[in-house]
Amino acid sequence: MKNIFFTPGPTQLYPTVQRHFQNGFKGDLGSISHRSEQFQEMYQELVSSLKQLLGIPQDYHIFIVGSGTEAMERTIQNCVEKYSLHFVNGSFSKRFFLIAQDLGKKPIKIDALSGEGFAIEKIKIPKRTELICFTQNETSSGVMIPTEDITALAKKYPDKLIAVDIVSSVPYVDLDYKLLDCVFFSVQKGFGLPAGLGIMIVSPRAIQKAEGLSQKKISIGSYHSFPNLLHYAQKQQTHETPPLLAMYLLERVIKDMQKRGIDKIRSETDQKAKLLYDFLDKQDTVAAFVKERRVRSQTVIVIDIKKAKKDIKKILAEKGFIVGGGYGENKNTQIRIANFPAHSVQDIRRLIRELKNLRFTTKISP
Amino acid sequence: MKNIFFTPGPTQLYPTVQRHFQNGFKGDLGSISHRSEQFQEMYQELVSSLKQLLGIPQDYHIFIVGSGTEAMERTIQNCVEKYSLHFVNGSFSKRFFLIAQDLGKKPIKIDALSGEGFAIEKIKIPKRTELICFTQNETSSGVMIPTEDITALAKKYPDKLIAVDIVSSVPYVDLDYKLLDCVFFSVQKGFGLPAGLGIMIVSPRAIQKAEGLSQKKISIGSYHSFPNLLHYAQKQQTHETPPLLAMYLLERVIKDMQKRGIDKIRSETDQKAKLLYDFLDKQDTVAAFVKERRVRSQTVIVIDIKKAKKDIKKILAEKGFIVGGGYGENKNTQIRIANFPAHSVQDIRRLIRELKNLRFTTKISP
Repeated sequence: MKNIFFTPGPTQLYPTVQRHFQNGFKGDLGSISHRSEQFQEMYQELVSSLKQLLGIPQDYHIFIVGSGTEAMERTIQNCVEKYSLHFVNGSFSKRFFLIAQDLGKKPIKIDALSGEGFAIEKIKIPKRTELICFTQNETSSGVMIPTEDITALAKKYPDKLIAVDIVSSVPYVDLDYKLLDCVFFSVQKGFGLPAGLGIMIVSPRAIQKAEGLSQKKISIGSYHSFPNLLHYAQKQQTHETPPLLAMYLLERVIKDMQKRGIDKIRSETDQKAKLLYDFLDKQDTVAAFVKERRVRSQTVIVIDIKKAKKDIKKILAEKGFIVGGGYGENKNTQIRIANFPAHSVQDIRRLIRELKNLRFTTKISP
Repeated sequence: MKNIFFTPGPTQLYPTVQRHFQNGFKGDLGSISHRSEQFQEMYQELVSSLKQLLGIPQDYHIFIVGSGTEAMERTIQNCVEKYSLHFVNGSFSKRFFLIAQDLGKKPIKIDALSGEGFAIEKIKIPKRTELICFTQNETSSGVMIPTEDITALAKKYPDKLIAVDIVSSVPYVDLDYKLLDCVFFSVQKGFGLPAGLGIMIVSPRAIQKAEGLSQKKISIGSYHSFPNLLHYAQKQQTHETPPLLAMYLLERVIKDMQKRGIDKIRSETDQKAKLLYDFLDKQDTVAAFVKERRVRSQTVIVIDIKKAKKDIKKILAEKGFIVGGGYGENKNTQIRIANFPAHSVQDIRRLIRELKNLRFTTKISP
């Protein structure tokens, strides 16, 4: 029996990936030079199809990095002299904050309890803030920040740069990119690809900020500083040898998603999330960890299993359904279920059927 | 007709790579978690087989990064407060130097002309130098630094840290690792793998240096600082999601090379290099760019084609032999031929036969 991965990344590969790998081999994508025209054309295709899929303005830049975590570091290095502000409600938003600290900045944070959202409309951003950092979808706890909250804050503080981590919500999340400055993701989640490639979407304003810091003799890094990334991106190249094959696979999967239609992918994601949350809301011994519906992630569903007294993860794995454990200290008290484009409605229905077979006690109807 | 790549990286894939990819897919290596035991075991296997293949001391650490270029940045960040010293005789040694400058250090350099080596035994290293940086094999120009020169300098200056870029000479190069502190490579050259993974071999002394800098409040980076890389490596993990599939492929190819025998790989490399250089030394219109035999790279053979007045690269490509162009400004006046473990003696003989068919004028025998 073939396993199906509902882990929140690395995860189930997008169904076409293996075929694209084979074609990549045939086309020598593991061997061609990153200075060749063939590479430049592929990079150009990747950039234009990604912009089209996500609705990214034409004057924004697409940079190739190693991971979402590297993107956090490069964002801080290039957009912050001293003060970044972080919305922290889980492990990944905390990581973003800690990276700013490690780099010698003076970040401040606005905390929410794990599993809870922020009252963003009530928050006053300190004047000195240079960059506001959102983790739009907290992979650790399954809380999302509604895109309209990000949009509203961006409009309220037009002089601030805004960074958004969409690692585990892309391509589902629908952002108004023209209000944003550094948006980033990695490919092993919503795009259903093997890990090892990070993508940054960077505004002209963020480039200017980096150039300004550099003129003030503040270190913005070296080969992956924004001006250097831009210098190479403008000729469809990279400074270092990039993961060419991974870039090719991403370009191919984006094309597949364009054919399927981003609207359809998004509505199916909503439909699958609803199936899962509706099921959970009827249970008693297991429950959605995030209570407030407005901030429930549609792509990473975290389930509280404390009362179940069963090793649900293990029982499901024996049947070929691989789900994620809780993150960090919640390793044994939660499970996490990814709802990505690689997961069909049918897959989610099968998973729910298996969960039902575990015969949790359900709520007594009123 | 199937192409064969003699480009100096990305290059011809090691013959077993496609099979390993298929097995990787079967084993869900594109989907498993980087927090799983399966990953930890694979990482452990990678570390122990790499140490065995190259003769790396057991107390040295193996870190996962994105590229050789990233390894340069992390080496400078973690081992230099102010003064690094760089032996510069081509584009990659220059890149290492420039990265130190970009990071706000005060690097000094010892220059040699492109295509020439250094009189290392005559060089006096300034007292303030913290880190000496070698590019053991200059991929841009085909010059190597003999390992005995590195060893001699390391013994003469035992208080200095030593970094060695072996990007295009691994696994051929045979170093005395216990005298060295940061040695790094990427996998798309001698290991014949798709690009997207860099490996750092780091001494306990280099870790101490990084910790000392950190205590002095000098920024050593964030998620890829040496102490943080070490923290995760000690539990066979990485901070960020790493390129798991690429790590698996490297581990597999190292095992293949162990079976073949590193001594055999090295002696075959010498044999193939001799075939190429012997051929070139008999020609008149084409010639090895590096004249001094002692510093001729055995793994990247650079050929001066100025006098040939033929588009050799194009003619060879039409026959399925893909060779590299000259690097940077030498794009059209040189070609570069890789001699990696993926290239058999037979492959090199076939290439030489094709070169002979081009009917260059040869030297008149004395």
